[in-house]
Amino acid sequence: MTDKQAEIQQANKSSDSRRPIMLAIAGDSAAGKTTLTKGLVNALGDHRISSICVDDYHRYDRTERKELPFTPLHPDCNYLDIMEQHLKLLSEGQPILKPVYNHADGTLDRPVYVEPSEFMVVEGLFPLWSRASRACFDATVYLDPPEEIRRAWKVARDTAKRGYTEEQVLADLDKREPESAAYIRPQRANADIVVQFSPILSRGETVKDPLSATVLMRPTIPHPDLHPVVGDDTEEAMHLKLIRDDDGKPVDALHVHSYASEEATLKAEEAIWNLMDVHEPLSDELGMIDGKRDGPLAITQLILLFHLIQARHT
Amino acid sequence: MTDKQAEIQQANKSSDSRRPIMLAIAGDSAAGKTTLTKGLVNALGDHRISSICVDDYHRYDRTERKELPFTPLHPDCNYLDIMEQHLKLLSEGQPILKPVYNHADGTLDRPVYVEPSEFMVVEGLFPLWSRASRACFDATVYLDPPEEIRRAWKVARDTAKRGYTEEQVLADLDKREPESAAYIRPQRANADIVVQFSPILSRGETVKDPLSATVLMRPTIPHPDLHPVVGDDTEEAMHLKLIRDDDGKPVDALHVHSYASEEATLKAEEAIWNLMDVHEPLSDELGMIDGKRDGPLAITQLILLFHLIQARHT
Repeated sequence: MTDKQAEIQQANKSSDSRRPIMLAIAGDSAAGKTTLTKGLVNALGDHRISSICVDDYHRYDRTERKELPFTPLHPDCNYLDIMEQHLKLLSEGQPILKPVYNHADGTLDRPVYVEPSEFMVVEGLFPLWSRASRACFDATVYLDPPEEIRRAWKVARDTAKRGYTEEQVLADLDKREPESAAYIRPQRANADIVVQFSPILSRGETVKDPLSATVLMRPTIPHPDLHPVVGDDTEEAMHLKLIRDDDGKPVDALHVHSYASEEATLKAEEAIWNLMDVHEPLSDELGMIDGKRDGPLAITQLILLFHLIQARHT
Repeated sequence: MTDKQAEIQQANKSSDSRRPIMLAIAGDSAAGKTTLTKGLVNALGDHRISSICVDDYHRYDRTERKELPFTPLHPDCNYLDIMEQHLKLLSEGQPILKPVYNHADGTLDRPVYVEPSEFMVVEGLFPLWSRASRACFDATVYLDPPEEIRRAWKVARDTAKRGYTEEQVLADLDKREPESAAYIRPQRANADIVVQFSPILSRGETVKDPLSATVLMRPTIPHPDLHPVVGDDTEEAMHLKLIRDDDGKPVDALHVHSYASEEATLKAEEAIWNLMDVHEPLSDELGMIDGKRDGPLAITQLILLFHLIQARHT
């Protein structure tokens, strides 16, 4: 370290503060990141937790992109080095001035000041992109719906909320596919937890049917030991199986079927929560979607909440 | 250091790079910061040196400010914590996404990506504001024209280039005066070098007369030893005097009068440059203003350039 570096470090000493607990939720567009995030924010309250979307680090606005050979899913279309830098700053308890992409008109707006809170959920296309970005998180999640389900969700959202036609959304999905395969989906391998919400296609269910959840828990972080709570009988609406993941690596797979009874999922929530030796109350906000409670979503959010609380207390 | 902090540091190890040499030029609005900066950039060339203005860290746009009790000279009107953070990142060789204030319409625009170059000049209202910001610089300058001269310059610039009337500029200057006194001028005490360009008012010169330069060199950094080059005879157009500054502290005061001959200032430039044991050629871009060479400006810029080059070689 040079004298100058020592001087800079010394001058910044007083700015040390308690670091936030950070959770990443990565996944492709319309994978369900916002839905998953919402329950966590409601459960802990916005005085304790905040969420940011890191898809605003666009290098180009929509007009500029028209001239370019890539979509926003390409790393070169984004300032991912600045995203990494901002994640590092937040993880050190520092504020950032975060860029803002205006989805309505495709322009880059004035940046916003973001101060870290006790817990932070960081969702987006690229949070697990690099070793430097991953190092900032206490737990990492990848949302992995079957592609046909995600496409249906994206069409529904972008036609309803972003003013596109179905043809435009489908053309955009096709254009993005090679970059999704090359840059987004590889992040799945770097997540501690892989979540799939989906109707069970192998049973003939369709995108209109209620969603079941599969939560793959990799032994990269200490997960709650669910064995006392959930059995391995696949006939049960909730079960836990040791399986090989697509990549051949061992993983604990928790299944929560859409037909699991409210009584069963509530009981499981309570039991999982009590595995932690802390005095945080269990929130009743988990799994709420459009005013109704969804059991598979609740259990999934609970596991993520478990990781947040556990990281705070260790 | 916690495990998480160690992990973050480890993951960022490869991003270490050579740090830039950084020079701060602080001063109130229209003090002459841009003029002083230009010669340095021209002398070293934009492949080696870049300059940024740090007056863009506005918390509010012009419309929002109308409702507020303070001007942009008030720290609460700015994200000075983010300015400090960005200075620190640049000084570590990291890029930043710098906010942009649009002087034409008073709005906050999309931010710009700034990568540090070998040398960086950082000019603005607040670069010497805090210990953390000052620590980032190898040398610090405060521009200190007499207030009546600065007011005349500001009226001239803002009516010609920013579309204001003289009455508007004068009213704005009056409104800013208490905050200039409270927050801008105290930075003078924290500069290694205090520069005053001014007609010599005590001789009856006015704002229309050519400018002389006074360069106060505080013993806070090692300055070039000018004794072999400049004498202490105050009858000479260039002279060096040991004086007490306004605050009573000892300081070397270099005076370069407007009537110093081109031959004398060129000879002094050469001699000062040769005090450095480096093989950088002396630029002939110093002191150029509107296509003509100004001796007092050239000598002042040379001293700053000396500090940049010296810091690079030590």
